[in-house]
Amino acid sequence: MNYFSSNFKLGILGGGQLGKMLLYNTRKFDIHTSVLEASNEAPCKIACDEFHLGDLLDYDAVYNFGKQVDVLTIEIENVNIDALETLEKEGVKVYPASKTLRSIQNKAKQKLFYRDNEIPTSDFSRFAYLSEIEDAIENGGLEFPFVWKAAQFGYDGNGVKVVRKLSDLEGLPAGECIAEDLIPFKNELAVIVARNPSGETKTYPVVEMEFHPEANQVEYVICPARISNEIATKAEAVALKTSKAFNHVGLLAVEMFQTKDDEILVNEVAPRPHNSGHQTIEASYTSQFEQHIRAILDLPLGRTDNKVGGVMVNLVGAEGYTGNVVYENIETIMKMDGVTPHIYGKKQTRPFRKMGHVTIVNEDLNEARRIAEEVKKSIKVISE
Amino acid sequence: MNYFSSNFKLGILGGGQLGKMLLYNTRKFDIHTSVLEASNEAPCKIACDEFHLGDLLDYDAVYNFGKQVDVLTIEIENVNIDALETLEKEGVKVYPASKTLRSIQNKAKQKLFYRDNEIPTSDFSRFAYLSEIEDAIENGGLEFPFVWKAAQFGYDGNGVKVVRKLSDLEGLPAGECIAEDLIPFKNELAVIVARNPSGETKTYPVVEMEFHPEANQVEYVICPARISNEIATKAEAVALKTSKAFNHVGLLAVEMFQTKDDEILVNEVAPRPHNSGHQTIEASYTSQFEQHIRAILDLPLGRTDNKVGGVMVNLVGAEGYTGNVVYENIETIMKMDGVTPHIYGKKQTRPFRKMGHVTIVNEDLNEARRIAEEVKKSIKVISE
Repeated sequence: MNYFSSNFKLGILGGGQLGKMLLYNTRKFDIHTSVLEASNEAPCKIACDEFHLGDLLDYDAVYNFGKQVDVLTIEIENVNIDALETLEKEGVKVYPASKTLRSIQNKAKQKLFYRDNEIPTSDFSRFAYLSEIEDAIENGGLEFPFVWKAAQFGYDGNGVKVVRKLSDLEGLPAGECIAEDLIPFKNELAVIVARNPSGETKTYPVVEMEFHPEANQVEYVICPARISNEIATKAEAVALKTSKAFNHVGLLAVEMFQTKDDEILVNEVAPRPHNSGHQTIEASYTSQFEQHIRAILDLPLGRTDNKVGGVMVNLVGAEGYTGNVVYENIETIMKMDGVTPHIYGKKQTRPFRKMGHVTIVNEDLNEARRIAEEVKKSIKVISE
Repeated sequence: MNYFSSNFKLGILGGGQLGKMLLYNTRKFDIHTSVLEASNEAPCKIACDEFHLGDLLDYDAVYNFGKQVDVLTIEIENVNIDALETLEKEGVKVYPASKTLRSIQNKAKQKLFYRDNEIPTSDFSRFAYLSEIEDAIENGGLEFPFVWKAAQFGYDGNGVKVVRKLSDLEGLPAGECIAEDLIPFKNELAVIVARNPSGETKTYPVVEMEFHPEANQVEYVICPARISNEIATKAEAVALKTSKAFNHVGLLAVEMFQTKDDEILVNEVAPRPHNSGHQTIEASYTSQFEQHIRAILDLPLGRTDNKVGGVMVNLVGAEGYTGNVVYENIETIMKMDGVTPHIYGKKQTRPFRKMGHVTIVNEDLNEARRIAEEVKKSIKVISE
């Protein structure tokens, strides 16, 4: 199909910041885009050709929207999967596939998928209700510490909690969840795999993530990861195996633990552009957003290696500030070498809310990492 | 002023492709943008916050638009300058300044400006009417060959012609024009200078341009230029002197000839992002578009050096094809290393019409140049 000068339409479910960055990359190729999103205030609204208001979890909204497009993709996983399944049967190209989303949307199913496909992951138990965890502890079927995860609708540290004692369970949602082994790890790593329907596959370099100890949000993403070639090769192989197991089309971001014994365990995946790939905009030959578009349109994939070293810092709302956002010292960081802020345009800040990210690129990765720390120390997302 | 979380508004005169690439860069900083443009079909329409229809040469249209914004910039020079002058007096920050645009808009005035400011440029004569050129030739006041240039409204090879005999003047516009010495040159070079109101100044590396012999349009832009350090230093110095002479704010693209005697002569300037800087999107630490925004908002300027070597190829309509555009072999070029097409989204092609550009980046500039030639040979902009 000729995407570049025809009546082709690309549909995107979700109108958030990831969708916006994706849309800017469709512009290079002059692709006609249509977005479905529940909020009229969504960032994508001014970046797409057509904007449709609708609930992403509503069957009719997703089905009626999807019928109007040729290729349908997502920028958020929580969408109505039954509608996607019908659309696939009716000939719409849906990437990621409904089957993949069904495996991923529910964390218990995701873990079972890894087990079934012999993809290394930490041990876990599945519970229909939170109360069953308490029973399991009482019966000796589960021991502290473990990681509680809500099976559905968790993101950015919501829906995940390390449980060290019974009282840590207080206040958690009552529904379906899993209890995972708490893995003592050296590093959190991620690999983004791109695959197009023709089967061409490329992996981005392994990145290393540093998490904020309290908020459980990524603080720095470092690309390439400062690990041995051996570990990098192992991580890439696991990521490729995972993408292949899903028979995935588009980007698959595979988050992994490097354990104390240098085992690689898959933590979770995201079937779309991902926070661990934002530095690709400035650091890589092909940004993850352009690559996702190339992949789902069955175009040749672009180079995935780095032009220069890249470090990404998430900009999150400072503790103690809620209200109209102010980016304190943003001009200070813009004076630093190779620093590009990406402000998402949310009007209100609150503690740990993701408000943007900053990329730092440099020929020397260690220098980029040093500047990233200065960035982190200087800029503060506060309120008026 | 806090641009990032206030009611600040950036106005852009013109809604074309340059404006669109500029607008995508405002998004990183979440800047509220407003565009004035005569065509409802303009590329900028879906990339700005506010879109106003109006004639850029109409005093009232420009004035009324400008009154609503804090900083006003352009993506095309042909705008009503009287309105800009009034807006400046009333406190709107206009970059480039009305005075600069007045000097640049008219090529005769632009040449006089260089002469007055001791900026090296080729010799020229100024004529109120084309017929005066004929008189000058008859009187022996002007000799063949020379370069005829319309004083106003020329762009992309329109309004410029090498005149070798009297009949070459046939069919040219009758109005004000100049006749320039035809300079035998080794290279056409360009330097983009960025300057903010605080006086911070940065220059991009010198680029080298190869022109299509017939269409007088740039075929390749090569960054950095394959010239000696001595010539590069000389070209940068001339470009800086030119920016300083205009007391310019924003980007100033300075196009120059390197003569057979290694003199540097200014050909012309553009006070905005420019075709000779498109490769900065992929090759430089800071794209020219981001840099223009940083400059006019008085933010710190970003790094201007290259991450990797960059070559830019203009995509122009092939001869013999007029009608609905088709990009033949676009997938072939997307398979090549480090190749990014930028399709401008014009629906109709015609011979030599600028339809897009392709950037080729590589660690090795010679390899980028080699791939650029393959790109040029492979892709063809034709009609259905």
